[in-house]
Amino acid sequence: MQAEQGPRRHPGFWKILTVATCAALLGCLQAGELQGHVSIVLLGATGDLARKYLWQGLFQLYLDEAGNGYRFSFHGAALMAPTQGQQLIDKTLETLSCPQGMAASHCTELKEQFLQLSQYRQLKTAEDYQALNRDIEAHVQQEGLREAGRIFYFSVPPFAYADIARHINSSGRPSPGAWLRVVLEKPFGHDHGSAQQLATELGSFFQEEEMYRVDHYLGKQAVAQILPFRDQNRKAFDHLWSRHHVERVEIIMKETVDAEGRTSFYEEYGVIRDVLQNHLTEILTLVAMELPHNASDPGATLRHKLQVFRALRGLRRGSAVVGQYQAYSEQVRQELQKPGDFQSLTPTFAGVLVHIDSLRWEGVPFLLVSGKALDERVGYVRVLFRNQAYCVQSEKHWATGQSQCLPRQVIFYIGHGDLGHPAVLVSRNLPRPRLPSDSWKEVGAPPGLHLFGRPLSDFYTYRPVTERDAYSVLISHIFHGRKDSFITTENLLASWRFWTPLLDSLAREAPRHYPGGAESGHLLDFELRGSQLSFAQQQLEQLVPGPGAAPMPSEFRILNATYRESPVVLSWSAELIAKLASDIEAAATRAVQRFGRFHLALSGGSSPVALFQQLALRHFTFPWAHTHLWLVDERCVPPMDPESNFQALQAHLLQHIRVPYFNIHPMPVYRHQRLCAEEDQGAQHYAQEIATQVANSTFDLVLLGMGTDGHTASLFPQSPTGLDGEQLVVLTTSPAEPRQRMSLSLPLINRARRVAVLVIGRMKHEVTMLVSRVGHEPKKWPISGVLPTSGQLVWYMDYEAFLG
Amino acid sequence: MQAEQGPRRHPGFWKILTVATCAALLGCLQAGELQGHVSIVLLGATGDLARKYLWQGLFQLYLDEAGNGYRFSFHGAALMAPTQGQQLIDKTLETLSCPQGMAASHCTELKEQFLQLSQYRQLKTAEDYQALNRDIEAHVQQEGLREAGRIFYFSVPPFAYADIARHINSSGRPSPGAWLRVVLEKPFGHDHGSAQQLATELGSFFQEEEMYRVDHYLGKQAVAQILPFRDQNRKAFDHLWSRHHVERVEIIMKETVDAEGRTSFYEEYGVIRDVLQNHLTEILTLVAMELPHNASDPGATLRHKLQVFRALRGLRRGSAVVGQYQAYSEQVRQELQKPGDFQSLTPTFAGVLVHIDSLRWEGVPFLLVSGKALDERVGYVRVLFRNQAYCVQSEKHWATGQSQCLPRQVIFYIGHGDLGHPAVLVSRNLPRPRLPSDSWKEVGAPPGLHLFGRPLSDFYTYRPVTERDAYSVLISHIFHGRKDSFITTENLLASWRFWTPLLDSLAREAPRHYPGGAESGHLLDFELRGSQLSFAQQQLEQLVPGPGAAPMPSEFRILNATYRESPVVLSWSAELIAKLASDIEAAATRAVQRFGRFHLALSGGSSPVALFQQLALRHFTFPWAHTHLWLVDERCVPPMDPESNFQALQAHLLQHIRVPYFNIHPMPVYRHQRLCAEEDQGAQHYAQEIATQVANSTFDLVLLGMGTDGHTASLFPQSPTGLDGEQLVVLTTSPAEPRQRMSLSLPLINRARRVAVLVIGRMKHEVTMLVSRVGHEPKKWPISGVLPTSGQLVWYMDYEAFLG
Repeated sequence: MQAEQGPRRHPGFWKILTVATCAALLGCLQAGELQGHVSIVLLGATGDLARKYLWQGLFQLYLDEAGNGYRFSFHGAALMAPTQGQQLIDKTLETLSCPQGMAASHCTELKEQFLQLSQYRQLKTAEDYQALNRDIEAHVQQEGLREAGRIFYFSVPPFAYADIARHINSSGRPSPGAWLRVVLEKPFGHDHGSAQQLATELGSFFQEEEMYRVDHYLGKQAVAQILPFRDQNRKAFDHLWSRHHVERVEIIMKETVDAEGRTSFYEEYGVIRDVLQNHLTEILTLVAMELPHNASDPGATLRHKLQVFRALRGLRRGSAVVGQYQAYSEQVRQELQKPGDFQSLTPTFAGVLVHIDSLRWEGVPFLLVSGKALDERVGYVRVLFRNQAYCVQSEKHWATGQSQCLPRQVIFYIGHGDLGHPAVLVSRNLPRPRLPSDSWKEVGAPPGLHLFGRPLSDFYTYRPVTERDAYSVLISHIFHGRKDSFITTENLLASWRFWTPLLDSLAREAPRHYPGGAESGHLLDFELRGSQLSFAQQQLEQLVPGPGAAPMPSEFRILNATYRESPVVLSWSAELIAKLASDIEAAATRAVQRFGRFHLALSGGSSPVALFQQLALRHFTFPWAHTHLWLVDERCVPPMDPESNFQALQAHLLQHIRVPYFNIHPMPVYRHQRLCAEEDQGAQHYAQEIATQVANSTFDLVLLGMGTDGHTASLFPQSPTGLDGEQLVVLTTSPAEPRQRMSLSLPLINRARRVAVLVIGRMKHEVTMLVSRVGHEPKKWPISGVLPTSGQLVWYMDYEAFLG
Repeated sequence: MQAEQGPRRHPGFWKILTVATCAALLGCLQAGELQGHVSIVLLGATGDLARKYLWQGLFQLYLDEAGNGYRFSFHGAALMAPTQGQQLIDKTLETLSCPQGMAASHCTELKEQFLQLSQYRQLKTAEDYQALNRDIEAHVQQEGLREAGRIFYFSVPPFAYADIARHINSSGRPSPGAWLRVVLEKPFGHDHGSAQQLATELGSFFQEEEMYRVDHYLGKQAVAQILPFRDQNRKAFDHLWSRHHVERVEIIMKETVDAEGRTSFYEEYGVIRDVLQNHLTEILTLVAMELPHNASDPGATLRHKLQVFRALRGLRRGSAVVGQYQAYSEQVRQELQKPGDFQSLTPTFAGVLVHIDSLRWEGVPFLLVSGKALDERVGYVRVLFRNQAYCVQSEKHWATGQSQCLPRQVIFYIGHGDLGHPAVLVSRNLPRPRLPSDSWKEVGAPPGLHLFGRPLSDFYTYRPVTERDAYSVLISHIFHGRKDSFITTENLLASWRFWTPLLDSLAREAPRHYPGGAESGHLLDFELRGSQLSFAQQQLEQLVPGPGAAPMPSEFRILNATYRESPVVLSWSAELIAKLASDIEAAATRAVQRFGRFHLALSGGSSPVALFQQLALRHFTFPWAHTHLWLVDERCVPPMDPESNFQALQAHLLQHIRVPYFNIHPMPVYRHQRLCAEEDQGAQHYAQEIATQVANSTFDLVLLGMGTDGHTASLFPQSPTGLDGEQLVVLTTSPAEPRQRMSLSLPLINRARRVAVLVIGRMKHEVTMLVSRVGHEPKKWPISGVLPTSGQLVWYMDYEAFLG
């Protein structure tokens, strides 16, 4: 995307006010070179948003830009009749305020000018739009000016978008050479599908560069300062801004209000769609993105933001905790006339853990939190650095605020809260930051105020010289074509792509109830465990089991019994995995003690993934440095294919542990740029690698699974290869895609010192029962051919597979 | 090592006091089954340590064990004449104290008994030892008992060890079937060599199981509680006790006293040998070791401690900061009659960063800190957990101490400091720990006391039911054969092996001076940066450059010039490496944009190591996922050999980044269990791998070095292969070991799109000058044959190589 040339850049001499008037009034508008005429059409001009923010923003634009050589006309549009509409608008315009410090008389005069340029229009039919167009053209011609551009601001509900867009496209476009900008307000869809649909629809009327999707958080002064801060303090802060220094990033928006009166909207959206998917995600990208070399290049900024989306680790159910304030369902029942037993599942509180798999951020938790009916109204982004100092003197001697042992943090304080205004806070044990002194001023600390664990005096504190409303900032950015303050289609869809799977997985889950306000206590506090979030407190109702509650897993012990005349370990799946992992570690330790190395052959599939994670995260004494990892089977897919068993091994095990490169033995399914071609002899090569490295081709442990058709490894029923014969490694064909496979053969598996078969899940119950009754029939049931010649076979089954 | 059967284990009926006496005295010694006679010989019985601690410890042993069926005789030995010695001993024994709460009359009676069993002996000559032996034998016979064992406690300077040991070995050994235990006090050498020598000497007189090396910190109650705490709270704490949860571990021993009066000792040892090598290292092993399944098995404990030493990452100069209190040199000058300008380099303060490369601890900093003349006297081990919670309510609502957002920590408080007694502190937001209630009691918090950032009321606090001196604890452990409370030879040497390289590297460095006490301010505070420590404040004298100071590196810019008609980048080495890393990233980014992948061939050697680290730790946007890594050359050594170039690449680059497994291309120097055999066609295979994967066999970037003999890659002067011809990869011979090499050929290198030659260090100056003047003479100067056919050659030289 190319940045549009902002029109502000040619100041000049043309004056729209007479010199005399101007000289008489302090601070009157500076005149500039003639730049052309800009028409601004505010659709929904009589609505809430327009009355509260947009008219004021347009007035501010007029104050800022009229002196730069632009002529304006402001068209407040709605569906109601002209007289009524004009009255409503006149009433709104009366309430406009001038910048602080402007003389009252001057203010009155400027408001008068603005009023003259602003008028109501009823915009309903195609003819209305044509008439508007004619009027603008006539007006521009009368003035003897060229048309610079038109802004259509959609402050209307999304269902009205398509019609309006069609009218604008067919009869609202400006004359050639002038620009068109349409401004859209959220919601931009409800999930990835609906957002895509809406985007496609809009895309049929407007070019990407014509659309300005507003996320008004990007106009909040503290948020708008994130990138400039990072850019202007690159030297002091950019190297700190990474996983080597940052402990966590918190992006928080807490509200005290609840959803009362808005449940018809809220019930459809919930807190994640309302706040996290847009505002907090946008902030996340500003904090996390790589700085473009030229921070004032909007195209580069937008590209870098998109890169953050690409690096986001997918969200799972465990990435979030959700809550709902207790009164919410009752409010929904009343406002939406729901039956008395209706219980909403819409979350009004969410905490989400986001990980960014980039070199800069890998492993750093980004916490996104928002909720209604909380104990305070506050918004902030907090970058908390790790404590990397040791202070030799005892704490009482630490000089306040400057000790490297006190928390080090940078906070972009969006507003409200104990501070009450936007601010940038940098703890004094970090370098003193630079902020543009024309827009941010350093301020002192009111005594007694504590924020983020420290007295405010521990921070360098900056606040805006002039507080500006987000909409007035954004209207100015629209006017100057600063597209990096808006949501591009790509950005929007990337965000929905990220959030939709979590929203889907939460759709049928009951959020935790909280009383609201300070009474919620620690009920909503949550903990990070690896990539999982969970509430820190167990919920009371969960502590008292109801009558007839199912027995808890911990009431079962690991049972030892036999299955097909071999030992079977029976348990619930989590304990089963833990037991198998311990048994594997014990086997590894013994093997390394006796032989100096441990040869472990692992199967693909989903059950081993839990085992890999258990081994990676809980087994600190596993002798990985002396362990060789082999594959039991592999799919004939390219090496980096997500379907590859080796890829799963890499993602869930190898990246967490340190196995020497040469101890890792992927199956050579891809040779000479081909997959599993007989001529490439991949199976023979793997067999030879085994023969060379594994004494007697006897693995210390082979981990197998069992398919619902009785297959094991990639040895399927009726397979012409691998069930007997001399070959150690074979190519086989699966009934399921991808069909081509490579597999260890039964004879090779049966040479192993120990074979473990892991069977998990209710889906496996039927085959478990069947196989328990069959004899040695490997052609029909390959798993029945697993019978180590002199080694030991152990089955690991969970209760669901065993008992159904 | 097998645990010796402790003699306490068979309580019984034999009474050494009459029933009548015993009944009359409250708490009198319980009688036990007859266990035999134990002789304890305290060598250096009139010395400081003996007078202050050891006699009291022996008395305590008598109180604890006499009732268990043992008879004792206590021989206080020294060199002085009998009468004088006996007087001194009598004087010491008068000061013995009984346990708190014992009636005075009972105390007097017990002391009387102890006095009767204790006598002075002059032990100087072989005859003296023979006489002692005869007396013990006669005494045991008279009593009609069997001899259980003998303890010789060496409370003498190390120079006396050998003589005494010889005498004991030749005439002090007990009768067959009885045990001998010799107790040794530090110092146990001065570095690895001297410790080894001393150990060998002692080993010629005693079996390993006979030696009890004392580190009295292992007898301090809080230290002795570390393993039992971990064992008894395994379920609640063991999974927290890892890199996933622990932020850092601090092991601290601060003193207020200085070395005055002891400089003759101190000047030879310094704080690292005096405190860190022994006390703090022992504590480290207790905190970090894997728990044995059976924590009361001393053999298992000792083995697990040794495993910690094996996993310790080697210390380098940058692993430590050292200081010296300002008055120290003057004290040394006075006490040791040194000349007036003598400046000692002995550190009196040290902070050391230890990393443990185990799966449990990788990446967790262990900080060991000790010093004299500091602001307080205190010792503790602090395990600080990471903050893994987010608390939704604002801070003012956090319930004191129990919020998961307050610091979570476990502290073994050795003593002194603001608390004033040994303690185990566990913050209340962690699980309530179990401690043995017979020896540790929970206590309340004195109001107003803050420790470790929190009021004491935030902790579960436990203190010993009875405070016991470390020596009395250890004497009891010696008596019971608890070898895990002592330093085995293996343990001792492992510790010296760990510390000696750091001590050597510090030997000629001036420590930072500090005024001492609270006045030291932040002067000794230090920071962790990766694996480096540095003082947080720059020292004043370093801020003011002296007259004629060398220009600072930052005054130089990176210069661009030409060398051998190609561009050369000139700078100081750190900036040069930074520039080269940036250039490589830029090339990678371009290549990935254009071709989807980047083929990078890297040389071995030491200069690239700094480059690897720069790339790994500073280049977050490097497109590693699309980068293929090739080797320019390799030594013909087994794959895991530390000399292997690939190993260096793995250690310094690969382990920090995520390159897909199949993008890594080590040279196949090891095939069919052989190194670089022509028949194995390793070179041909590598050439083919390149041909298959790298379009036109044209690498995007080849990084070379230049040897002092003008070699580059592993192409040496007069090499018969690789300097021309068709072969892309060749086997060559180096003049230096290991002689066999594999290398890319000059023709292959010259096909590259870009070749960078990195030349660093004064050693390279001469060859740099020579090569600047030669033409195209690859036979003589292989580097002169580097001339990319259509690619670009860039030299990267530091000023030392260029200017000398």
